[in-house]
Amino acid sequence: MFLSKLSGYASSPIREEDRTAAKLAKEGKKVIKLNTGDPAKYFKTPERVVNAYIKALKENDTYYSNSQGIEELREAIAKRHKKAYGLEISPEKVLITQGISEGLQFLNIALIDKGDTPILFKPYYPSYMPYLLIVGGKPIFGDAKEENNWEIDLDSLERSIRNAKKERIKYMLITTPNNPAGYVIPRKKMREIVDFANEHDIFLISDEIYDELVFKGSFTSLSQVAGGMPYMILNGMSKGFVATGLRLGYMLVPNDDAKSMQLLNKLIELAQMRLSPNTPAQFAYAAGLQDLGAHEREVRKLREEIKERVYFTTREVNKSDYMHALLPSGAFYVFPKIELGKLKLKDDKAFVQNLLLEKYVQVTRGSGFGMPGHIRIVALPPKEVLKDAIERINSFCKEHSR
Amino acid sequence: MFLSKLSGYASSPIREEDRTAAKLAKEGKKVIKLNTGDPAKYFKTPERVVNAYIKALKENDTYYSNSQGIEELREAIAKRHKKAYGLEISPEKVLITQGISEGLQFLNIALIDKGDTPILFKPYYPSYMPYLLIVGGKPIFGDAKEENNWEIDLDSLERSIRNAKKERIKYMLITTPNNPAGYVIPRKKMREIVDFANEHDIFLISDEIYDELVFKGSFTSLSQVAGGMPYMILNGMSKGFVATGLRLGYMLVPNDDAKSMQLLNKLIELAQMRLSPNTPAQFAYAAGLQDLGAHEREVRKLREEIKERVYFTTREVNKSDYMHALLPSGAFYVFPKIELGKLKLKDDKAFVQNLLLEKYVQVTRGSGFGMPGHIRIVALPPKEVLKDAIERINSFCKEHSR
Repeated sequence: MFLSKLSGYASSPIREEDRTAAKLAKEGKKVIKLNTGDPAKYFKTPERVVNAYIKALKENDTYYSNSQGIEELREAIAKRHKKAYGLEISPEKVLITQGISEGLQFLNIALIDKGDTPILFKPYYPSYMPYLLIVGGKPIFGDAKEENNWEIDLDSLERSIRNAKKERIKYMLITTPNNPAGYVIPRKKMREIVDFANEHDIFLISDEIYDELVFKGSFTSLSQVAGGMPYMILNGMSKGFVATGLRLGYMLVPNDDAKSMQLLNKLIELAQMRLSPNTPAQFAYAAGLQDLGAHEREVRKLREEIKERVYFTTREVNKSDYMHALLPSGAFYVFPKIELGKLKLKDDKAFVQNLLLEKYVQVTRGSGFGMPGHIRIVALPPKEVLKDAIERINSFCKEHSR
Repeated sequence: MFLSKLSGYASSPIREEDRTAAKLAKEGKKVIKLNTGDPAKYFKTPERVVNAYIKALKENDTYYSNSQGIEELREAIAKRHKKAYGLEISPEKVLITQGISEGLQFLNIALIDKGDTPILFKPYYPSYMPYLLIVGGKPIFGDAKEENNWEIDLDSLERSIRNAKKERIKYMLITTPNNPAGYVIPRKKMREIVDFANEHDIFLISDEIYDELVFKGSFTSLSQVAGGMPYMILNGMSKGFVATGLRLGYMLVPNDDAKSMQLLNKLIELAQMRLSPNTPAQFAYAAGLQDLGAHEREVRKLREEIKERVYFTTREVNKSDYMHALLPSGAFYVFPKIELGKLKLKDDKAFVQNLLLEKYVQVTRGSGFGMPGHIRIVALPPKEVLKDAIERINSFCKEHSR
């Protein structure tokens, strides 16, 4: 076999229909793409960030940066987390990555040997899986059940890990707000998760990329309740700064325990191998964070607008006889359950593929998030586009009804 | 063990002294950094490229691009290879990566299972190794001997692979011009390499990132002699466009054979997992390639200037009693052999570490390229800086002489 066995685990459910969609668009079909969570397709990167980017370019900041990221940016990120969450963190413990994707890759290379069994929760962000599987990991899954408002279920997890080898549970990865379900982990639950991780001596990782896009209840960062435990925060520029295409994420490893220090040093080594992230973009991001007041004003407007679109989408979805969704508390996705029993379609994958071919609407199959029978709709376009898309989905369902 | 076993193979000889160098600089020491091959520290990214970058930013091109890279850029790259090397390649067979580093990572994930034995040649670019070792590969090494002007030795390679399992030699990776030795593979030798790969049914990969920086003899691209064999070219924007910090590389998989098609599709899948490279930078690169005439004028000036600095550095090095180097034919490194027998220093690693601590000159140890007893000097700074550095190296050697 020419290709490696482990590369068979490469997968990208969110983008797997992209080539088909591009072909349809080339043929002149009016494709509505609701698969990629990209605010920059519908909102603007703040002008002051763009201007700082331009300034860096005019000043010839086109060289390789420090592998860990420029100091200005790491300092600005440390300040942001101090102000927002009261976290004391040295810039030395901040690592800039080429999006969270690269961070996930570093993380799994750093920690996972063949047969290791870290904990993920369903529904999960799809990229958590291939980066883990490709290095030979086998996740243990915790559940967040829809009938329980997507709340993380630690009791069932307790039973699932009873027979696992403790030292092979290299990490537990949570996401708040959740992508795709929009569930935000409440403070009380976050404390329980921390207790669970402490009790079982598990390194805890919290992906908080949507922390600024919470519109129901309030957001709790893991860093607010973690105390001295070994943990890591993942975040980045993509969502709050409407700057997906700049490809800047970061990892925080705040504490000084042995696990944290080993991991941080290994991550920096892995970062050195790829030299550096895009340099002028780092100056743009640093400038964006210098004025946190301006940023809060920008993000408040964005959040309001996104909330409207998410709520609108949820309402429209719930008018349908063929799907229903819980109202998300954050992020910008709606994750309806499809009434497959009413349809002559095998599963969510067939649903998504045929919907694209017949109605030119591209969404993502729930099985890609570990939740078959669902689809994920990106609720970012203007309402008229969302309305059109949901109408197309409804007429698709009618045409395939039993 | 918390960290994974395979992550023990992470390494970055070029940057491993960076944190020490940064500390010394903070203490006010005048550190001369000759470790990173970064022309953008000393030369400028062409203004028309910077302007196109700014235009893309002003036009809000800050969204995720196509995972494979924007079509304009892939078309421009295809045209460049058609014009420069007569290669007919569809833009569908071009994949944009976040530097060649990311390409190397994709490549090894796509092809290497534990125990696979691809072929590398010594001296090699350091990043070839960790990306291979981390996925469990074990390279077979071909030699390029200094006493034979760094020419690749296929006869000894023939003997080395006699006992290898053919199907486990997943690829053979060559570099022209070579980093660190500056050796440029002549056309006749390139033909022999192609014959060798064909005879043994090995997928051939040519890293040609320095193709525009050849100042002695002439450059041959693998694509000019490969014919219908399965092969790949690695290249990118960093060197010829003086744009290292933009992080754009590419992979070409020109042919339609089964291996090429399997690999290309797998690489695109891996690219989808990390969403996209920096989007506005891709527009800048595309614009840079639109006017190949202007590019050729820019690069000619750059090449002349770099040639002077490389030749100057080689001459200065060869005045020393403690090191001597062959004159490179391309790239921008000088790779002297150190007369360790004359010194009270254990090896090249001790040489490099002590040189930095005592004389504040940072170079890279030859063992990082598979060639102990050498050091790599980046010959990019202005001559007075290079002169100062080599004087410091000489006085360092005198102080440590037996």
